[in-house]
Amino acid sequence: MADQHAQSGEDHRPTEIPAIRWEEPPEGPVLVLLDQTRLPAEEVELVCTDASALVEAIRSLAVRGAPLLGIAGAYGVALAAARGFDVDEAANVLAGARPTAVNLALGVRRARSAHRAEFAKSGDGELAARAALDAARRLHQEDAEASARMAECGLALLDELLPGGGHRILTHCNTGALVSGGEGTAFAVALAAHRVGQLRRLWVDETRPLLQGARLTAYEAARNGMAYTLLTDNAAGSLFAAGEVDAVLIGADRIAADGSVANKVGSYPLAVLARYHHVPFIVVAPITTVDPDTPDGASIEVEQRPGYEVTEVTAPQAPVTGAGGGIPVAPLGTQAYNPAFDVTPPELVTAIVTEEGAVSPVTAEALAELCARSRQVTIS
Amino acid sequence: MADQHAQSGEDHRPTEIPAIRWEEPPEGPVLVLLDQTRLPAEEVELVCTDASALVEAIRSLAVRGAPLLGIAGAYGVALAAARGFDVDEAANVLAGARPTAVNLALGVRRARSAHRAEFAKSGDGELAARAALDAARRLHQEDAEASARMAECGLALLDELLPGGGHRILTHCNTGALVSGGEGTAFAVALAAHRVGQLRRLWVDETRPLLQGARLTAYEAARNGMAYTLLTDNAAGSLFAAGEVDAVLIGADRIAADGSVANKVGSYPLAVLARYHHVPFIVVAPITTVDPDTPDGASIEVEQRPGYEVTEVTAPQAPVTGAGGGIPVAPLGTQAYNPAFDVTPPELVTAIVTEEGAVSPVTAEALAELCARSRQVTIS
Repeated sequence: MADQHAQSGEDHRPTEIPAIRWEEPPEGPVLVLLDQTRLPAEEVELVCTDASALVEAIRSLAVRGAPLLGIAGAYGVALAAARGFDVDEAANVLAGARPTAVNLALGVRRARSAHRAEFAKSGDGELAARAALDAARRLHQEDAEASARMAECGLALLDELLPGGGHRILTHCNTGALVSGGEGTAFAVALAAHRVGQLRRLWVDETRPLLQGARLTAYEAARNGMAYTLLTDNAAGSLFAAGEVDAVLIGADRIAADGSVANKVGSYPLAVLARYHHVPFIVVAPITTVDPDTPDGASIEVEQRPGYEVTEVTAPQAPVTGAGGGIPVAPLGTQAYNPAFDVTPPELVTAIVTEEGAVSPVTAEALAELCARSRQVTIS
Repeated sequence: MADQHAQSGEDHRPTEIPAIRWEEPPEGPVLVLLDQTRLPAEEVELVCTDASALVEAIRSLAVRGAPLLGIAGAYGVALAAARGFDVDEAANVLAGARPTAVNLALGVRRARSAHRAEFAKSGDGELAARAALDAARRLHQEDAEASARMAECGLALLDELLPGGGHRILTHCNTGALVSGGEGTAFAVALAAHRVGQLRRLWVDETRPLLQGARLTAYEAARNGMAYTLLTDNAAGSLFAAGEVDAVLIGADRIAADGSVANKVGSYPLAVLARYHHVPFIVVAPITTVDPDTPDGASIEVEQRPGYEVTEVTAPQAPVTGAGGGIPVAPLGTQAYNPAFDVTPPELVTAIVTEEGAVSPVTAEALAELCARSRQVTIS
């Protein structure tokens, strides 16, 4: 079950936007999400008391973004355990809520493993639930740290690739604090550049169909006082042609073993434009986004989302008139092709930046080595 | 002054959509436009009684599309003349209503020249006004004929480039009967393919920010019973990558002497994608779109449109809440980069199809030859 708490009235400008948090009121533990479908018009909190409410929040994109989905999945398992639901059942529905995001399944698995291990050891459900929560909290904390390391590593790479400074960075979708336990992935790199006075302009793709760029990245850029300009996804080509883009920075939802990158639809056209214009195309993602079990781009399952996201326009204050809850912009009965992601082949990716370091050029070998190093660090 | 006549209630499905027509009711001549900003939700007619109402309709995109703008401009001059306004003043404001569209200025000039010549000859204002109207009607008729010839020529080119048939064509913006005295430019080619059973699928880019693809091309495709699918502009890359696009067909707002093509923003990224995937990129436009006075792409003035088209979403039934008349989707104060057009260099254009024939490869020499042939035909 999910309740909604709206914050309205005064203009709140917290320095940190809590995209997700665990709370333990007297009536039992809950997972509190900032409902990202309502931004930037309203800051509404969604209070989940069970896994199915969280699954609904994940499917509706109230909570989204690869790293945050992992954290949400882990907390979801902890929530089911703490409230005495069937943990395996909760884990299964959570892991399958969105097919392309590898982090979601990983986060779920991590909390479930902790729960199982503790239960096998002590036979105590409460201790097992506590273990699942600890696992979720550790993941949350690790993600914040990873975010900081990605920002550092990405900034060093930018300085190396663009020694002149004054970066004009184009980004797509939303990859900031709203998708992360910390400050995000690609957005965190731009923010780091901003903080050292090296960001001349953040070009923000609006990112149709759900406008995460216009709604969320612009919101985060404005809050951080960054110089940003919004554009339709169509206008990116003109910017490249005018020499106004020094680098493209995007996140990733899944990276195959060969370095193919699944990310928000519209990323691949940017990669092709970047190559045509000799502009670096940089992917920033936690190492957990690399999925060694997915050999290549063709093996990545791309989620197809409902056509009404294209045939209708939804906006926070828009009245519901269409079947999909938005305002129809196409004739009734129009079919739409609406893949959530596209896949960029490794040869178009200049570098993949992770918290463990950057890979450039992007090869299966270099990625495997980075993953091996990461596992060593994790095990030690 | 413009009045609005709404047709609502039953579902009208005329075989021909009158995008523009001249009428002479007892209270004086008027120019009646189908208000394209209200489609597909409503068919509303806009009745212009003077040039400034028409300028407003052009600026708000109630009437749009290169060939139709030429026809509208010519009728606008005729309207000013018929109603006794200053014809030169009307011609000036009309010609400057949108800077990139060369046809608009050409249409205006044609009616004004006819008016001047007749007035110089007879000194009779009524005869001169009649001459301007005749010129506009001739332009209208010629455009319908040109449209049919472009369709024929474009279909022949498709058959040559794609001998297997069963074309899957991607198009951008709206280039059908709503922009033309006939059936349009690029859309007319797709329609011709449909009529001979050779169109497997029309992929319709929604075309942000104003969604002419979703609103208008989908409307025309549905009316003509074509197999079409709508997509966000972002999703075109996935279609190319999946081998689902056999050819791109677009219109043009201005073609420079070197073959550079200014068209709706988002065309250039499609050209780069088409090149990367070895897919023909075909521009269909009347020969008048070629502007010998514009030497190259860099000389084309690209109209910058208001930022609110990006920061707000407008839809026919949407309530007005933002400064631009739409629903805000970005934080207040967000700046937007909103060029109306982009420029595709000739090396990315497989062919330019006109009513006088096709040019492929696209070179300044070949274009100049085509224009010279066209002038000969016009003079003879």
